Amino acid sequence: MEPVVTLPDIEAARTRIEGHVIRTPLVPSPSLSAVTGADVRLKLDLLQPSGAFKLRGATNALLSLSPADRARGVTCCSTGNHGRAVAYAAGRLGIRAVICMSRLVPANKVRAIEALGAEARIVGRSQDEAAVEAGRLVAEEGMVMIPPFDHRDVVAGQGTCGLEIVEDWPEVDTVIVPLSGGGLIAGVAAAVKARRPAARIVGVSMDRGAAMQASLAAGHPVAVEEVASLADSLGGGIGLDNRITFAMCRALVDEVILVDEAAIARAMRHLYRAEQLVAEGGAAVGAAALLERSVTRPGGHIAVIVTGRGVDMDLFTRIASGEDVDPAAVSG
Amino acid sequence: MEPVVTLPDIEAARTRIEGHVIRTPLVPSPSLSAVTGADVRLKLDLLQPSGAFKLRGATNALLSLSPADRARGVTCCSTGNHGRAVAYAAGRLGIRAVICMSRLVPANKVRAIEALGAEARIVGRSQDEAAVEAGRLVAEEGMVMIPPFDHRDVVAGQGTCGLEIVEDWPEVDTVIVPLSGGGLIAGVAAAVKARRPAARIVGVSMDRGAAMQASLAAGHPVAVEEVASLADSLGGGIGLDNRITFAMCRALVDEVILVDEAAIARAMRHLYRAEQLVAEGGAAVGAAALLERSVTRPGGHIAVIVTGRGVDMDLFTRIASGEDVDPAAVSG
Repeated sequence: MEPVVTLPDIEAARTRIEGHVIRTPLVPSPSLSAVTGADVRLKLDLLQPSGAFKLRGATNALLSLSPADRARGVTCCSTGNHGRAVAYAAGRLGIRAVICMSRLVPANKVRAIEALGAEARIVGRSQDEAAVEAGRLVAEEGMVMIPPFDHRDVVAGQGTCGLEIVEDWPEVDTVIVPLSGGGLIAGVAAAVKARRPAARIVGVSMDRGAAMQASLAAGHPVAVEEVASLADSLGGGIGLDNRITFAMCRALVDEVILVDEAAIARAMRHLYRAEQLVAEGGAAVGAAALLERSVTRPGGHIAVIVTGRGVDMDLFTRIASGEDVDPAAVSG
Repeated sequence: MEPVVTLPDIEAARTRIEGHVIRTPLVPSPSLSAVTGADVRLKLDLLQPSGAFKLRGATNALLSLSPADRARGVTCCSTGNHGRAVAYAAGRLGIRAVICMSRLVPANKVRAIEALGAEARIVGRSQDEAAVEAGRLVAEEGMVMIPPFDHRDVVAGQGTCGLEIVEDWPEVDTVIVPLSGGGLIAGVAAAVKARRPAARIVGVSMDRGAAMQASLAAGHPVAVEEVASLADSLGGGIGLDNRITFAMCRALVDEVILVDEAAIARAMRHLYRAEQLVAEGGAAVGAAALLERSVTRPGGHIAVIVTGRGVDMDLFTRIASGEDVDPAAVSG
């Protein structure tokens, strides 16, 4: 088995990507602290220039390419934030990028990728179908695949977020992380637990199509049905041939929590009204878990990663205004 | 005349307040860059835990107190953000604080100050009347006044924002700063021009009651009528006995721009929809000046300070939704 990503990989990634990504602030959340009785702080990775934490991993992966691979160009399949991250990083580094994504991806995310100068290729109705097209570009056109999570350089890059948390707040004892393919939580857990072994790592997914949670329960990677969700950025499978993130999650994640659509909407509204933050659904699940009091053993020093702001602003404004929104009617 | 604040004061302030305030990120603004054709970056001081840049100056002033002064407690008059900053910093340092403010201050700002553990004292219909009460607390109860802007330690603290900008972006050639009493722009200008003498410093105020702009035009501090504005955090006079910020603004500010209420509302909406930021009216004036194309000689590397998020969220949601809002009906 391929060795998992460890602290030295993450420290090297941090050196590599410095100046290309934002060192995001960890800010107190008075409102979530009041709800929980703990000291709750928000890691604002939604401030990354591409709109989400994904820029860390994508930048680390691109900067790790050989000159020959750079010249061949890169491709990926993505529910949006990874694609935008690859597009942004490739644009800055002068690398050609073709981003493949399914028709479930909201239109604003597609437009954003094109605005970054990348080619958006819309294929099929699932991330798996988009992945087939990306695979074809690799096989037939010689491009280099940048996977969204199951890749050493991507996991190491995402881990820099955890390194910043534990450096800014050595007392942290609980880190709550949105969980989809597991790239972020794997890297963050590796960084945080290397520095602070007793810290608990809590993953949160939406209760519709939580692939990693289902896989951990089954003991091996399993496929799940993709369903429209306010947390669309957390959609997609973990890959039946998962090599890195499944094993790392099994070893390092202490608890996985599922939240429903109503809880996600409430958390988005809460972050907006109480903390003046515009977070996408997938970025609000950590706050949702705290607001629902779902974390089994929350510590006294809780960091919540707020991962992205890739949300359609018409949809967001409706949610912020208190409207009940059916995600199937929005992004389906 | 008292010497103005200079770079060594600001560097000392930075060392003093480190760990008490957020080192805020400077993030690219694709939307404002597209509008201007320049590289525009936003300095997100609205992320400070108290909700605005004011925490820098207040923290520096409180940390500069003698032990005897600390024990006597502090007071100030404020349109909200300064008061909240003093309350927040005093709360962390275990210092008693009484915050005096006028009845024009929105209710959400008053509640926020009380939530921080400070006493909110509501007096009169202008910042000047609130200042009289703060003066009484000093004269009769022995408390220490922490002025909102015209104070060496406050200006030096605000200047750390400029120091961070020029360190993160040595190429910066234009810094756009919301302008009220001049504490922020004076400190920022001192820091930026010390490191980069050719950089232009542009102040932006609302066109209703712009005290510093009127004073600079008159050649001496003048009083202005306080009028309700979406940029309520920029209201108030500069003090007819102004000692520091008027002279520093006269020496260091290259241009002052006024923006009207419609432009402020448009800029708030723009920052929300295009950059996913919730900025108060007074924090959106820099974006307003760029959107209105009012800056006379914008450079190619423009930093815009987005100063605070102390906005009533019901009001903000109405503005974000596109509603025309009469500020007089809201905060009067």
